[in-house]
Parts: sequence; C-alpha cells; structure tokens
Amino acid sequence: MSALLPSVPEKTIERLSEYRRTLIKFHKQGVTHIFSHVIAGIHGITAVQVRRDLMLVGFSSDAKRGYEVAELIDYITDLLYGQSVMNIAIVGMGNLGQAITKYFNSKQLKLKITAAFDVDPAKVGTTIDEIPCYSMDEFEDVLSNNEIAIVILALPAKAATELVVPIINAGIKGVLNFTSAPLNFPQGIVVENYDITTILEKVAYFVKANEENEAN
Amino acid sequence: MSALLPSVPEKTIERLSEYRRTLIKFHKQGVTHIFSHVIAGIHGITAVQVRRDLMLVGFSSDAKRGYEVAELIDYITDLLYGQSVMNIAIVGMGNLGQAITKYFNSKQLKLKITAAFDVDPAKVGTTIDEIPCYSMDEFEDVLSNNEIAIVILALPAKAATELVVPIINAGIKGVLNFTSAPLNFPQGIVVENYDITTILEKVAYFVKANEENEAN
Repeated sequence: MSALLPSVPEKTIERLSEYRRTLIKFHKQGVTHIFSHVIAGIHGITAVQVRRDLMLVGFSSDAKRGYEVAELIDYITDLLYGQSVMNIAIVGMGNLGQAITKYFNSKQLKLKITAAFDVDPAKVGTTIDEIPCYSMDEFEDVLSNNEIAIVILALPAKAATELVVPIINAGIKGVLNFTSAPLNFPQGIVVENYDITTILEKVAYFVKANEENEAN
Repeated sequence: MSALLPSVPEKTIERLSEYRRTLIKFHKQGVTHIFSHVIAGIHGITAVQVRRDLMLVGFSSDAKRGYEVAELIDYITDLLYGQSVMNIAIVGMGNLGQAITKYFNSKQLKLKITAAFDVDPAKVGTTIDEIPCYSMDEFEDVLSNNEIAIVILALPAKAATELVVPIINAGIKGVLNFTSAPLNFPQGIVVENYDITTILEKVAYFVKANEENEAN
C-alpha cells in the first residue's frame, strides 16, 4: 500500500478491523466484557499481540473484567471511520463485483457502495442489489457528483490501467484494486493492489514449505 | 497466517508472486532482461526492495543487463510451486466462488481448482466452468479421493465453522478462508483468513488519516 505514513501500522489496522467484527458478534450475544486472550484465541494470535494493538491506539482494559465490549467497538469504529460515512463506487459488476456488493449491503458499515459501473448494456441503467449501475462514459461525472471517496476495481486487468487518469481527475482518495494489473497513483491517493492469485500462491508456498520441513 | 515458520517472510512471497506475473507479461512481449528499478516502478516500491527480495531467495542479476526474465520466472515458479501441481477445491459456488474459479481457469497456474461444493441442488451434479460441483455430503470423500491439498472457502460465514473438522479429517494442508469467520486449525495446516471487509476498512482508515494529515 502506498500512502502518507501515519503512526499506526497497516497490520494493526487490519487486526483492529477483525477484532471489531468479533466484538460485534459478542455484543449481539449480550457479552459485556472480554479478555484479550479470548479475542486472541478466536483470531489465532497471542494475547500480547491483542493488548499491544489496543495499547498502540490508546485503549486500555480493566485488568479484572477485561475490555468493555460496547466501548471498544465504538472506539475502533471511530478510529477506522471517524464520524463520516464514506461513499464507494465499484467498477465491474461481474461475479466478483456482485459478490462484493452483496456482501457489503448485508453489513451495517459506514462504508457504503453507492454507485456501480459496467460496460454491459444489459446492466447499465439498471439497479443491481439496490445500487444504480452506470456506463463508463459517465465515470468521472458520477464520481464527482456523488462524493465518492473510494473506488473498488473488479473489472478485467486490461481495462483497469485506463482508469488511472479518470480516477485522479475525479478526486478519488482511495483505490482497492482486485485486478492483476498493479496500479500506481500519486502520493495522497491510497492504493491497495489485491490480486487473489497472490494470496493463493502464498498459501501454496507455505504448504510446500511445511511438507519439505516434515520430510527433513 | 499460522504455519510452521520457514525462512522467507510472507511479504516477500507475496511480492515474488506479483513480480512473477509482471515478468510473464514482459516475457510474452519478447523482453529478455529487466532491471530491478523497472520491476520496482510497476509495483510502486523501491529497487532496493526488489533486489533484497531476490537476493533473499538466492537469485542474482547481471549488473549490466539486469535480471534474465525467463530464468527468473522459472526460478520463482520453482520456489512457489516446486515440480508438482496442487489440486484445490472450492466450497461455495455463489458469485464469489464462480468469480475465483473463472479467474483461475483463465490462467496457466500449477494451482488447479479441480472440485467445487455447494448446497444448492440446482448446482450439485453439474459442471460449472468445467469444474464438477459436489454436494456437501461428499465433502470428505471427494477431498481424499482427488488428492486435494488446498481448500478455498467462499461460503457464508456460519457454515464455514462446521467445516473445520472435516477439513482436518480429509488431510487438507492449506485453507484460504474468504468468510468473515476467522478459523483456527492445528499447526501444520496453513490458514489465510481473508475477509474483504478488512482490506476495505484499511483503505478507508488510510484515506481518513491522509485527510487529517492534510488538514493539519
């Protein structure tokens, strides 16, 4: 990820996002307090790591009762999103685009997918999962007029590179790129290039490494 | 990711996977040699990082001509996959499952999705994108009989937790979990819990952090 560098590491932000979802589940079940080792057990990490992450963002626990669940949810939510709702647009309403949209629609996040784009004339002008689907010709206008902050790219790799300039022109602040084409943006625009192949190749590598370890 | 710890860091493996895809593109265009700063520019990182990653896995360049492209592709391929093809099964053939399957079918990887599972009677017994789709009742048997090494979970979170024991029983070596339920497995099984919400929340956090930096 390229971005200006704030003081909280990326990995900590990822884990806080994960803790938050776990905490919400417990909160719904009526749990009011939780210890670091319980959170740690669910996420397969150490309690020290959980305490370090929360200490790093300035949240402390009652040593006897653990973390106050509702308070911690609010704290992480505020840290991740602040007070504002962020509008997101998604480019490409194929299987991946629709999977992502459905998934986010089903959650109550302050991140909202509010616009979609596709080249398919059968999709343009319709509403998919309550999201209006626009043509690529309207790209810059729709982004600007709807105060979109983040764009998710779920289209073929070849078409993605052509969107770099329009994305800059539209004043977009963050890009989540699921295509296999790595994209670069000027400093000040946050980019996460996320090709699923990379994760799967990583899993495969460590599976192979484990097998070699066992064989030795 | 929980796994036995080999000497190459996860982030290096991710980058090698990404370099490899870039190198394959150049190779197809007839490029025979490439300098670290060219790879670096495409991936938005420093040339020092590229050289460090390749040095770490024991690959060196001709200082005058740069890295030999075909040789480097083979080297990384061998490191990531070894000589063997790894069979993968995917659980859940909804939008996400189908997006992943189509995506991998279109690439020539040594990772192959060879079996799919779903609860939908309309899908079970059919072939989707040339992959046979089985019912969940056949889960353990199909995994064992088809020498599946890795399972991709693209089903609803609630159903994912029920698969932990069957996955262990079937002798699976790696799990790529796209659900929002973090799963833990015994040591020796590689797990990557990958909830898309986490990446999007991370991008949102850094967008917000950039805005706050600019305001100060």
